[in-house]
Amino acid sequence: MLVRTFRLPDGSVQEYDVVQNSPYVVVAAFTKDGDAILIRQFRPGPERILSSFCEGYVDKGETPEAAAARELLEETGYRAGNVRLLRTLQTAYSTEERICLLATDCVYERPPQGDADEFIEVFTMPMDTFIPWACTDESAFYCLDALLLALQAEPTLKP
Amino acid sequence: MLVRTFRLPDGSVQEYDVVQNSPYVVVAAFTKDGDAILIRQFRPGPERILSSFCEGYVDKGETPEAAAARELLEETGYRAGNVRLLRTLQTAYSTEERICLLATDCVYERPPQGDADEFIEVFTMPMDTFIPWACTDESAFYCLDALLLALQAEPTLKP
Repeated sequence: MLVRTFRLPDGSVQEYDVVQNSPYVVVAAFTKDGDAILIRQFRPGPERILSSFCEGYVDKGETPEAAAARELLEETGYRAGNVRLLRTLQTAYSTEERICLLATDCVYERPPQGDADEFIEVFTMPMDTFIPWACTDESAFYCLDALLLALQAEPTLKP
Repeated sequence: MLVRTFRLPDGSVQEYDVVQNSPYVVVAAFTKDGDAILIRQFRPGPERILSSFCEGYVDKGETPEAAAARELLEETGYRAGNVRLLRTLQTAYSTEERICLLATDCVYERPPQGDADEFIEVFTMPMDTFIPWACTDESAFYCLDALLLALQAEPTLKP
């Protein structure tokens, strides 16, 4: 956490708490059949299981595309056929860069090899089921931003 | 920021940094003509202007629907015709609850009356322009999650 001080347009000075974070990738990944590749994991913030696309930090010197392919293979065991950058999102009170990518034509290659502290369940869902489910509270799916970007970039993903 | 300690499935113990935040509403708001009601504001995290839907904290004892209508009127000057809850999003390393709502049939009533430290520009966009623009880096629009929820809940918003 850091504190930043700004002079506002009316001349007053105000301090803001800003959360520090490093750039990370969010990988909207789909199999050759167009099914979404998803993970479920217990999360320390809400203290419950959330579902999401595969995510991970970009290593130093690594491109976002390479980070996306690496994290996807490590966390889910799927090898990406094609990877393309969609958009980077920023938020109001954080330094984070949430780099959203689309991975298509992914093929299952081998069991996941995540970090030792990651206990991840991998699952897939056809898009006609996934999209309405992702929009429910029960899904606890939190990568709706990357999902919308993927649907806009690749209309063939729409059911 | 708080630190939470968990025993993992393999018996090891790990600490996680968790960002503390209070529940807040994100208001996907649209005029009677179906135009999106948006704001632009300089943000201390990325130190640049980001665009978004109207957002704000829920006051104690207030319903999310009431908070959405209040924040929309304060920040944009628009009075909501109908407000409905879409979904609450949580994230991996924060206690935050991002409560997404849909406000339709909004009508401009009076100039915005935001907090003294808020310097907000309000603007509207027709959906056929807004959706592709929101998916670009240039827009710096960061409420794509609420946009997808709104489009799923209210198909008439689709261009």
